[in-house]
Amino acid sequence: MVDIIEKKRDGETLTKDEITFFIDGYTNGSIPDYQASAFLMAVYFKGMTAEEQGHLTLAMVESGDQIDLSAIEGVKVDKHSTGGVGDTTTLILVPLVAACGVPVAKMSGRGLGHTGGTLDKLESIEGFHIELTEEQFVKQVNDLKLAVIGQSGNLTPADKKLYSLRDVTATVNSIPLIASSIMSKKIAAGADAIVLDVKTGDGAFMKTQEDAEALAHSMVSIGHQVGRDTMAVISDMSQPLGFAIGNALEIKEAIDTLKGQGPEDLTELCFVLGSKMIVAGKKADSLEEARKMLEAVIADGSALELFGKLIEAQGGDARIIHDTSLLPTAKYEIEVPALVTGTISKMEADEIGVAAMLLGAGRATKEDEIDLAVGIILEKKIGDTVTAGEPLAIIHSNNENVAKSIELIQKHIHVSDNIQEKPELIKKMITE
Amino acid sequence: MVDIIEKKRDGETLTKDEITFFIDGYTNGSIPDYQASAFLMAVYFKGMTAEEQGHLTLAMVESGDQIDLSAIEGVKVDKHSTGGVGDTTTLILVPLVAACGVPVAKMSGRGLGHTGGTLDKLESIEGFHIELTEEQFVKQVNDLKLAVIGQSGNLTPADKKLYSLRDVTATVNSIPLIASSIMSKKIAAGADAIVLDVKTGDGAFMKTQEDAEALAHSMVSIGHQVGRDTMAVISDMSQPLGFAIGNALEIKEAIDTLKGQGPEDLTELCFVLGSKMIVAGKKADSLEEARKMLEAVIADGSALELFGKLIEAQGGDARIIHDTSLLPTAKYEIEVPALVTGTISKMEADEIGVAAMLLGAGRATKEDEIDLAVGIILEKKIGDTVTAGEPLAIIHSNNENVAKSIELIQKHIHVSDNIQEKPELIKKMITE
Repeated sequence: MVDIIEKKRDGETLTKDEITFFIDGYTNGSIPDYQASAFLMAVYFKGMTAEEQGHLTLAMVESGDQIDLSAIEGVKVDKHSTGGVGDTTTLILVPLVAACGVPVAKMSGRGLGHTGGTLDKLESIEGFHIELTEEQFVKQVNDLKLAVIGQSGNLTPADKKLYSLRDVTATVNSIPLIASSIMSKKIAAGADAIVLDVKTGDGAFMKTQEDAEALAHSMVSIGHQVGRDTMAVISDMSQPLGFAIGNALEIKEAIDTLKGQGPEDLTELCFVLGSKMIVAGKKADSLEEARKMLEAVIADGSALELFGKLIEAQGGDARIIHDTSLLPTAKYEIEVPALVTGTISKMEADEIGVAAMLLGAGRATKEDEIDLAVGIILEKKIGDTVTAGEPLAIIHSNNENVAKSIELIQKHIHVSDNIQEKPELIKKMITE
Repeated sequence: MVDIIEKKRDGETLTKDEITFFIDGYTNGSIPDYQASAFLMAVYFKGMTAEEQGHLTLAMVESGDQIDLSAIEGVKVDKHSTGGVGDTTTLILVPLVAACGVPVAKMSGRGLGHTGGTLDKLESIEGFHIELTEEQFVKQVNDLKLAVIGQSGNLTPADKKLYSLRDVTATVNSIPLIASSIMSKKIAAGADAIVLDVKTGDGAFMKTQEDAEALAHSMVSIGHQVGRDTMAVISDMSQPLGFAIGNALEIKEAIDTLKGQGPEDLTELCFVLGSKMIVAGKKADSLEEARKMLEAVIADGSALELFGKLIEAQGGDARIIHDTSLLPTAKYEIEVPALVTGTISKMEADEIGVAAMLLGAGRATKEDEIDLAVGIILEKKIGDTVTAGEPLAIIHSNNENVAKSIELIQKHIHVSDNIQEKPELIKKMITE
């Protein structure tokens, strides 16, 4: 192992055998944490070639169980977002794409952050459960074209162990390590094709477009090396996506969007990602054709109806698709007024996310309880004009004392005298 | 600790408090190995400022016991060599400098390598023991001006723990870490002034003069920051120093040198280092004056006589200073003939050292037993002419089968048709 660390430290390229030796040894405990962390720091500084990242990803996939989705007919397409504030796309894309005939066998997570993960959000729907056996999961996708479950089995234990170590050794922020971590999970979960949404901007992990593109290229290259159709969209996270930040609030926004009444940016991103998923799923030959299919399943209500069937199949109260008042509701709705008149010039998505987390919408640690009802509804986005006293956002809270959240929102939604254009939503498509 | 790793990873400068927090936490076990190794790798890539190295050194000194030499009159001057092949200078300098009135309270080691350390070499002298209590040690230096003991007490435990970790995480070869490790040990051992012999060339840890100078500057700067008079000499290790490589063989060579009959390069290096020690010890005002003192104590026999007194005081058979045949002697003396006629153009000191280690002169692991009698006497040095069949070296061995050592010596003492100048022994003096 010392030789492998030294080789990487000196910027040399590791072989498949060396990388597999490291992953196997680290997973089974024969290579100690202190050698792994020195190795990770060397990777932080010296990077990894595309081939090395491919080897690392496959070695992590092979470190644990792999989900076999071969019993599901058709091309299984998965989507992954690198995460942002108010990102409700998964909730919308699952029924939207399934309604166009692409089977969606979605394995989702909870995670830490400003709001809960997709699983938490779905649990805002009374009765909805995410525990299906692998058999039930496969059957439901074959019957209905869609299912959403929590991670089952012992997937990518090497990645889990390495991720915990990276977290405490300042080696999280390394593109080859991020790319191989994400891709190993998607591949182990059985996807044939993967559509990636790499966010960039203030509210994203990748603050600059340059970094976002580098990460996207790394992941697409890994996918191709392991024989999965993979592509990436670089999308804007300079402001929260859509208007809603919160679990039940985002379910409501997803339903609005499936009705064709969603926020413009969220709807557009779902069309862009969804078109790619449909082409990858071989249900359309071109993105134009795919987009028309998506517009059609919204217009005729079949996407929304399929969301209802998903909810019903997994034990939830499907009436919510027509009556969102059945979702958990917060006790208080509190306006956050603008302090000055002008144009919204900047929204620090991060900090607005923190305001939502303070209300109880998200977890800071694994042990934290989420309040599914609470969150923030933005009333303004970048480029909108506002008059002093007019609301910037509405806070949904179960606690009257929201001074800190108000302060954060007022401070981090910048109002300026100058005219400000809306940011471009889709920055780039990356296919190799 | 993650913040400290991150700060160093990003090339920022750590404060004294941060460095002390790391060393204290690592020593008491509250900071785990895996964070320390990530930190060390970050230092490997990003380096440390002179101030950071000073803080790191002092924190390591303070992690354990410190030897109090204040009961010894005069300026206590220590010397440290970064290590090479055939380096017998310590054995010569101790009596040489002490004979000029500088108290030498030498704490020495065994270590791994081509031959044993100073302690092993001294143990070639029958009866010599290196265990003195701190009280006896101080008394002997006050009475005789010199004593040599093994390391006692719990000196620099932080350095010991970090060194073991560096060894298995490919972070040994970092100048700030090497410099602080060496200096912490010298400072904890109680030296008022430190003369450093930094070797450069094939047989040295620092292969290039540039690296040797960088290490020397680092150590001198650390010394000055902690208030110790410190200077360094960069000396040649492109070939072994002197002629002898082996424990008893080097004792004999040291005695020859104290009689004024030693090899030219070894004698000169002892004069250069010794002069600096005498000036640092405030027994002479200039290097010229100091050198004359050294020449005088060799010429009048007082340095040799003092070596005899040291041996006697520590239980050894002092008759060896006049009769080196009383030292352990190997059973066989085997000539290594030159294969071609020409001039010695290159001697790979490393590999010649390995030839000595194979004979049993040194340890590859801590558990290995040393054969004090065996080793190599070089008959030629760079620039000397040789005729095919004439000996390049004489192997002293207790085993007839020395084919591997012969092969190594013949292969790594290069004989060429071209005239080759002798390498410059003293490359540079570094005082700041």
